[in-house]
Amino acid sequence: MIELPFARAEYQQRLGKIRAVMARRGIELLIVNDVANQHYITGYDGWSFYTPQVVLVPIEEVEPVWIGRAMDAAGGLLTAWMKPENVVGFPEDHVQRADRHPMDWIAAWIVAKGWGNRHIGIELEAYYFSPKAHARLVAGLPNAKWHDADLLVNWIRAVKSSPEIAYLRKASRLAQAAVARAYEVIAPGVRECDAIAAIQAAQIAGSPDFAGDITALPPTILGGENASAPHIMWSDRRFGKDETIALELAGVCRRYAAGLARTMQLGKTPARVADTAKAVIEGMDAVLDTVCPGTTAEAVEAAWRKVIERHGLKKESRIGYSIGVAYPPDWGEHTISLRPGDKTVLQPGNVVHSILGMWMDGWGIEISETILVTETGNETLTKFPRDIHVKS
Amino acid sequence: MIELPFARAEYQQRLGKIRAVMARRGIELLIVNDVANQHYITGYDGWSFYTPQVVLVPIEEVEPVWIGRAMDAAGGLLTAWMKPENVVGFPEDHVQRADRHPMDWIAAWIVAKGWGNRHIGIELEAYYFSPKAHARLVAGLPNAKWHDADLLVNWIRAVKSSPEIAYLRKASRLAQAAVARAYEVIAPGVRECDAIAAIQAAQIAGSPDFAGDITALPPTILGGENASAPHIMWSDRRFGKDETIALELAGVCRRYAAGLARTMQLGKTPARVADTAKAVIEGMDAVLDTVCPGTTAEAVEAAWRKVIERHGLKKESRIGYSIGVAYPPDWGEHTISLRPGDKTVLQPGNVVHSILGMWMDGWGIEISETILVTETGNETLTKFPRDIHVKS
Repeated sequence: MIELPFARAEYQQRLGKIRAVMARRGIELLIVNDVANQHYITGYDGWSFYTPQVVLVPIEEVEPVWIGRAMDAAGGLLTAWMKPENVVGFPEDHVQRADRHPMDWIAAWIVAKGWGNRHIGIELEAYYFSPKAHARLVAGLPNAKWHDADLLVNWIRAVKSSPEIAYLRKASRLAQAAVARAYEVIAPGVRECDAIAAIQAAQIAGSPDFAGDITALPPTILGGENASAPHIMWSDRRFGKDETIALELAGVCRRYAAGLARTMQLGKTPARVADTAKAVIEGMDAVLDTVCPGTTAEAVEAAWRKVIERHGLKKESRIGYSIGVAYPPDWGEHTISLRPGDKTVLQPGNVVHSILGMWMDGWGIEISETILVTETGNETLTKFPRDIHVKS
Repeated sequence: MIELPFARAEYQQRLGKIRAVMARRGIELLIVNDVANQHYITGYDGWSFYTPQVVLVPIEEVEPVWIGRAMDAAGGLLTAWMKPENVVGFPEDHVQRADRHPMDWIAAWIVAKGWGNRHIGIELEAYYFSPKAHARLVAGLPNAKWHDADLLVNWIRAVKSSPEIAYLRKASRLAQAAVARAYEVIAPGVRECDAIAAIQAAQIAGSPDFAGDITALPPTILGGENASAPHIMWSDRRFGKDETIALELAGVCRRYAAGLARTMQLGKTPARVADTAKAVIEGMDAVLDTVCPGTTAEAVEAAWRKVIERHGLKKESRIGYSIGVAYPPDWGEHTISLRPGDKTVLQPGNVVHSILGMWMDGWGIEISETILVTETGNETLTKFPRDIHVKS
């Protein structure tokens, strides 16, 4: 058995919140396709989502049901908190075949359970839930009344409990260690892949007290011209003598991700980099002066925008998003975004990764913080000097 | 610029094959949602697929078009081979919003291009293409005639060119290095996370001549009871004194993945492990005696099955699948499967990862090879002793 990350009471609390929303919306059965949401509800953890996998939450107060590939049900018994009969495997002969689909089997299971004519809420924008899987599920449940349940669980996740915040503090320590390691190993002539190897080792080995987990976003190290684009992967390119390098690194503990972006400079800092960094750091101060309960997400962005406009800069993309339990390919929760038009009122327990990425023409810098909204204001969980780290 | 992994002629060849199938099926525009297929066609490479991303292949002989998030178009200019106007960004204000969807914008772009009333082939079982994205695309293209194009590109990918095989050879070297590193670092009392850190560092740093890339499946190390389940992730658990450990590790070079599973034993080898290993190794011999051009996928499985039945064993799941260019969450190509009923006739250039995983009650072993079908038979690209590695 893998130790559960949370006490059972925590899972019951989560289910209570989910069922309250289901009841309000008239949903009698929730089909959860988002892998992070599945883990949030059940504790199930495995790299099995490349075949279809669902979690079913009935409105009545019984345990949820995990259904996935038969060979992965064994992993369900080792990681999920429910009783064994609530961990269900579909047969191996349904894996990646043209003539049948796991969702045929899952739909039949739901019908056999007597849930086939329910009001069913479903997440239609989950990463590993395909249009074909959806079509087969709908075909197999002709008497269901369908409800859009996208982000239902995600919005509940946006408010973190104390045990979740404890993991995010540990994750933040790992993110700091990853950036510190990057500062150590990156130097002119070093290959990107060698730097990434050292950084990933720091992310995964974790601390003497706890392991690091796989990061939902792989480490990004954007040196030179690559820093004009945010999501380029590493290669065997060697860092140059004079290069500005944007680092966007995670720390992850029991699937909880903290993000931390920093920028380092090899050789002499160009004036444009120094000037932009000054503006961005001042912008982060404005963000941190603004984040508190009762403020809107868009007000935080407006505070940033006011600063950088004064410096003659602009940024098209949002400057942050809710972060927490995460599986690849994203650590964002798809709820709160710090951008114009997002009128979400921040509340204690929200955690946002505010990432001030300036991807310019042929260069770029990034500075970020993982920020907890507290009762009275905020706390940056990531604690690390914000200045450009110069290595000359 | 990131150096393209292949010459432009290779991409033209791929497009030629794709267009031949499109013509045969009456498809005038192919919408490619599978990220590995997108890379295969365009060279585009970035961790950007957490927002919608498509590649469009028109039937006429013009360059394909990549469309993704505006901030990632910069990465398209650095990694894809097409001319800049064929790398298109949808506006940032379409990212993760309730009131609009990137697919609305992409559909409008297709209409504006004059392709809105075409026969359109689409992949409906791609990992990062959601039912909602599909619904919005269809709504935005009311005059299209839709064709199921799932696996159209994947089946072309199933036959590898010489330059692709060259990458798979390099990937196999990295997989071997990863297993060798695992043998070194795993010992009683060592934490799983520390072993994974060392193994990932080997996978990523690669060789002095080339970088290792992110692996589509993270390393799995299944020790003790965890070996009863194939896809459990690591933790801070310490390896025991007497423990059988199944390792399933990848090597990846320029996105080409080779898989290599091996088993190690700490302390004394239990008889059941030794006996099962003997049967499995004999089964692998039978696989390798059978794989050649003209044989069917199911005949390979039958040869394995005959051996293990004689040893009183059985295995429900398939024993292998086509492998090649890969992005998370899967390194399999979803085409050839070594299992009953798969009548695919093997041909030179096919590469299969034959994984003989025996997940038993409370323990397990795994042995695999990445196998190239040659003109005359086969060659195991992974070259590494198959015996259980005993460390006592």
